[in-house]
Amino acid sequence: MNEYPSKVLQEAVEAISSLPGVGARSALRLALHLLHQPKENVRHFADAVSGLADNIHYCNTCSMVSDGEQCSICADSSRDHGQICVVESVRDVLSIEATGQYRGVYHVLGGIISPIDGIGPSDLTITRLVERVREAEGNLEVILALSGDVEGETTSFYIYRQIEALGPKVSTLARGLGFGDDLEYADSLTLGRSIVNRQPFKV
Amino acid sequence: MNEYPSKVLQEAVEAISSLPGVGARSALRLALHLLHQPKENVRHFADAVSGLADNIHYCNTCSMVSDGEQCSICADSSRDHGQICVVESVRDVLSIEATGQYRGVYHVLGGIISPIDGIGPSDLTITRLVERVREAEGNLEVILALSGDVEGETTSFYIYRQIEALGPKVSTLARGLGFGDDLEYADSLTLGRSIVNRQPFKV
Repeated sequence: MNEYPSKVLQEAVEAISSLPGVGARSALRLALHLLHQPKENVRHFADAVSGLADNIHYCNTCSMVSDGEQCSICADSSRDHGQICVVESVRDVLSIEATGQYRGVYHVLGGIISPIDGIGPSDLTITRLVERVREAEGNLEVILALSGDVEGETTSFYIYRQIEALGPKVSTLARGLGFGDDLEYADSLTLGRSIVNRQPFKV
Repeated sequence: MNEYPSKVLQEAVEAISSLPGVGARSALRLALHLLHQPKENVRHFADAVSGLADNIHYCNTCSMVSDGEQCSICADSSRDHGQICVVESVRDVLSIEATGQYRGVYHVLGGIISPIDGIGPSDLTITRLVERVREAEGNLEVILALSGDVEGETTSFYIYRQIEALGPKVSTLARGLGFGDDLEYADSLTLGRSIVNRQPFKV
């Protein structure tokens, strides 16, 4: 890190360059950009960021980031509370919401079972999920929307074992070639599974 | 801009994506990164940034960013106060400092004369520069280190006219091929000037 003639500037550059994917040069560029903005804008920027520490809450039900004790998705009575989509992170909820294809609710695990990283089932919100399944009235579908790697599969299997006796329908994301994908460039594992799990042709 | 289930998250993402070169997806990635940091780190980040609005000063002499009324360069008696390097911006000072080749002091204009952008001489710190030249004791060299475009040349010429009667030595940056540059890829204007302004061969 260069020494800057101003300690205030130095601290700002160091803070900004602590962000992932932001190098020292970009951090300086961003700091100088902010330096030339009106003071109110800079304060507003800082307040918006510190809000992430001070004003963020997590939904009591699904652990999604929220402005209060219940997130806007769980509070929305127009959504289908008989479908719980289990995801690893907040990011995944936003990705699925962006598709506009899902009208159920979510359950954010806050991670995935990974012995290498020292993350076990008790570090995740699995107990709360089991509670939700137990308390559910009427038909319930639990959609395990975790990644397709070993950790994701392990976590899916662990959750399945915990909830199967409670009787919900359990499903998982469809896997296969992406829409518009070219066979030539597909990896052979995906292509192989796409053939084994082939679907009825629809017209 | 997507609608996020949390207004706090939404505001943070919007603030971060207002930075130049940071798109909505990167802003979300950075916001989620901060969200998963310890609260103290996020507050420290926000404080460091708001310092750019609240704690930054500009040097009374050279207009460089500073932590007080005089910047650390102007306050440094080991530097040569008989050389004033005139630059457009704070960024240029940092670039020249990073070379480690200059031991004089600076004068930050805070911009460049540009009628198209409505920036005239009175918007810059030229009056203060003329004062500094007038007050200088002993031999003074003013180095005009502005960019080589029309605005830079115009500003250099304007400043030269303002200070020439006061008798300082006035110099400008050497221009020519970059060190290590290949003739084949040099633009013809630079190459042409390099031949006209050729220098004695040194061994």
